[in-house]
Amino acid sequence: MWSPLLRELLQAFRVLPGVGPRSAQRMVLHLMLHNRTGGERLGHALLAALEQVGLCDQCRMLTEERLCPLCASTERDQSLLCVVENPADLIAIEQSVGYRGLYFVLMGRLSPLNGVGPTELGLEKLAARLDGGDIREVILATSPTMEGIATSDAISMLASSRGIAASRIAFGVPVGSELEFSDSGTLRHAFAGRAALGKDTAS
Amino acid sequence: MWSPLLRELLQAFRVLPGVGPRSAQRMVLHLMLHNRTGGERLGHALLAALEQVGLCDQCRMLTEERLCPLCASTERDQSLLCVVENPADLIAIEQSVGYRGLYFVLMGRLSPLNGVGPTELGLEKLAARLDGGDIREVILATSPTMEGIATSDAISMLASSRGIAASRIAFGVPVGSELEFSDSGTLRHAFAGRAALGKDTAS
Repeated sequence: MWSPLLRELLQAFRVLPGVGPRSAQRMVLHLMLHNRTGGERLGHALLAALEQVGLCDQCRMLTEERLCPLCASTERDQSLLCVVENPADLIAIEQSVGYRGLYFVLMGRLSPLNGVGPTELGLEKLAARLDGGDIREVILATSPTMEGIATSDAISMLASSRGIAASRIAFGVPVGSELEFSDSGTLRHAFAGRAALGKDTAS
Repeated sequence: MWSPLLRELLQAFRVLPGVGPRSAQRMVLHLMLHNRTGGERLGHALLAALEQVGLCDQCRMLTEERLCPLCASTERDQSLLCVVENPADLIAIEQSVGYRGLYFVLMGRLSPLNGVGPTELGLEKLAARLDGGDIREVILATSPTMEGIATSDAISMLASSRGIAASRIAFGVPVGSELEFSDSGTLRHAFAGRAALGKDTAS
């Protein structure tokens, strides 16, 4: 019942995460019947982005310009550098934390068995950046997994060998969760990382 | 934190039904980081379909050819014509019923207040098709709403004035539903449309 072009479009929509056969069908019918202008906009935006977007020269975030909007901004604190594994982590931090420094996006984490070493993560570029002299503190926000922790350890060594302070975001029980359902590793970290209560820690 | 091209792409993804800001972000990151080939395929398929797909000359289903695959098929029963409101209804019937006849897609239902009259629904084309002499029975599968029923009444008159049999799909309680939650209109139709039980109605 589908013509060849529509069958191909149905298949093509399946590349999107979370889109199964029924959603693909709904999307195709919606664009064909109710929003052709929107469909054209999507097609052109997609091809333009795929053709032009690469990585920021300085922080490896996705951008079509030499520097991403954050690196190009004059309003960010140039002395703070937060290291994240991927663009989604950067976005999560930007959307929730009042962080005003810069970032470095590893695009992965150390995983020798999968062929991901220092080169793949751009650690030479990061080291050169630390040599630049602007950075005062490196904030490690890699994931709380074995590989993420190994990655943050390697980067903290890069920082300390240059006399730059390094810190890691806290591992602990998620706010709003039930303590009894936290796994033992999380609880162990939460205990080890407990903070003294005083006037200045109230939030 | 998003570059201009990516911000435009995020917005463009929002034209898809069921896609909010978070899914759009997930789609953009997935295509940019993990499946650029799939993204290009989607972009090209979308623009090609939007440029070339129109309506079937005979049944008004979406297709880029003069006749859609169903109308062009030699294996369908040319004497049966099922009238539906939109392509999604045609697809639902094709996917579940063992129907082997042809279709006519109204692309709407009579709704004078919204400017949808016989012309918008292609009823002249449908009448000409009925005049052709091939059709033996018209099966009305418009929606069980006031406007859908008015539409099917109008078409059943087109058929009967030409001596062609017209039938309407049954309104009744959905299979697998709880009887107590059926609305009164549905129950009234289910009672009025009850079928005698006998050897030949067992399914």
